[in-house]
Amino acid sequence: MHALKGHGTENDFVIVPDLDGALELSPAAVRAICDRHAGIGADGVLRVVRSENDPESKEFAGQAEFFMDYRNADGSLAEMCGNGVRVFLRYLQRSSLVDEEAAVATRGGIVQARLRADGDISVRMGVPEVLADRPVVTAAHDEPRLALSALTIPNPHVVVAVDDVATLDALDLTVAPQVEPALPHGQNIEFVTPVDHRHLRMRVFERGVGETRSCGTGICAAAVAVAGLNGVGPDGEPWRVDVPGGTCQVTWFPDGTVELTGPAVIVAELDLEESLLAAR
Amino acid sequence: MHALKGHGTENDFVIVPDLDGALELSPAAVRAICDRHAGIGADGVLRVVRSENDPESKEFAGQAEFFMDYRNADGSLAEMCGNGVRVFLRYLQRSSLVDEEAAVATRGGIVQARLRADGDISVRMGVPEVLADRPVVTAAHDEPRLALSALTIPNPHVVVAVDDVATLDALDLTVAPQVEPALPHGQNIEFVTPVDHRHLRMRVFERGVGETRSCGTGICAAAVAVAGLNGVGPDGEPWRVDVPGGTCQVTWFPDGTVELTGPAVIVAELDLEESLLAAR
Repeated sequence: MHALKGHGTENDFVIVPDLDGALELSPAAVRAICDRHAGIGADGVLRVVRSENDPESKEFAGQAEFFMDYRNADGSLAEMCGNGVRVFLRYLQRSSLVDEEAAVATRGGIVQARLRADGDISVRMGVPEVLADRPVVTAAHDEPRLALSALTIPNPHVVVAVDDVATLDALDLTVAPQVEPALPHGQNIEFVTPVDHRHLRMRVFERGVGETRSCGTGICAAAVAVAGLNGVGPDGEPWRVDVPGGTCQVTWFPDGTVELTGPAVIVAELDLEESLLAAR
Repeated sequence: MHALKGHGTENDFVIVPDLDGALELSPAAVRAICDRHAGIGADGVLRVVRSENDPESKEFAGQAEFFMDYRNADGSLAEMCGNGVRVFLRYLQRSSLVDEEAAVATRGGIVQARLRADGDISVRMGVPEVLADRPVVTAAHDEPRLALSALTIPNPHVVVAVDDVATLDALDLTVAPQVEPALPHGQNIEFVTPVDHRHLRMRVFERGVGETRSCGTGICAAAVAVAGLNGVGPDGEPWRVDVPGGTCQVTWFPDGTVELTGPAVIVAELDLEESLLAAR
């Protein structure tokens, strides 16, 4: 089976082209592919299918030619992934399936992705919804902190400000921070601190995973929360956000939508052995 | 650049064919390939070169046609890797470069590898050297234990017996156990417990790495140490050793040599992008 490996700020994926929707990609096969020692290793699988050829995306075929069927490394279905959409567009362009932009159908709705002059890729997401209540977050061996914001974009995030880079770097994120009260479906937790004017540094603890190198929607959530704190709001100007896996830009537009911009890299083409895909 | 990914009991490798010895494989390129998020991800790289075509192995060309140039994930040179040799032979056979067996030159000497009827691969290593002094090993939050044996095979190992499987599974190996006195060049530490007649279960903490899924020479060290404890010695009969990544067999022959037998799996063929190999 032909596939590729790529990453966006070190959030990494195996891309499985299946334009005709002919492939049976079982949860067991996804787990086998994503296993970092017995398989290829990735945070998830991006199956690339023409929207008209998949029952889940058929109704969106008129608006978005391709459907990003995103699976988590544990085999479960996922809604959306900001870093994943960039890698998805990179694949479409590399394969001459699209020119410089594309609408991409995802389980979290249709998003617009486009190539920028510098080679980075921008993904226009929806409008974040800020929740009324802000929980208290306590990292291991750390003091309780009232969150800056709790918001969905569309997955749930809690953003926490810390004083400086030294405090951020010293946080113990090897265990899940406590969130009181937790959001109904759990949350990703972003710890963020200012570095410079409109320039943030962030670490993220993803629900069900642990600390990761990057989280696209979490980067957007952090910029939106800090913009709100600074009273600048959705002004259409970029924020820079550094994460352990690299750097992204976030622009919050006056219409409320948020755009994530960052790198997307293909590192290899793969031919997977049949034995890897046999369910186990 | 063409490559493959494979593993032996989940000790995983990127195999880089370079029969003519024409490739410049820098430490930075090895690190980039082995990076589990920004690259392919592996415990190390196995470069496959004809012994006559590499300055390091030229003198062994008459005894071993192929040289396994093994690099650790951090880019450093490594001597030998029992699990790696199995995957190396699997590659040679798959590529019709050898029939069912081969002498393989490594930085730790020449080893003999051969395919078995059941598909597993056996690697005949050298004679282990038992050291005079046995250190005391203390895992985190655990009681001090006098080691069963300290030995080189040829890399240094300290083998520690624990009472039962429950005790073994409960060990905290997220931090390095203390070894007093430590061996001059450090050591891998194997914790081992009996499961049944000539059947052991083992966990390993590798120097400079941490707990791993498997360690080929460590599996041999554990079997030799327990054989010595049981007074059976080098009798040419197999021991079974279960590790987190799978199962191997070890045979300690009357001539003192040790043979490791286990699975070797190729999971994919790879075409690496040039950008991944550019030194960073």
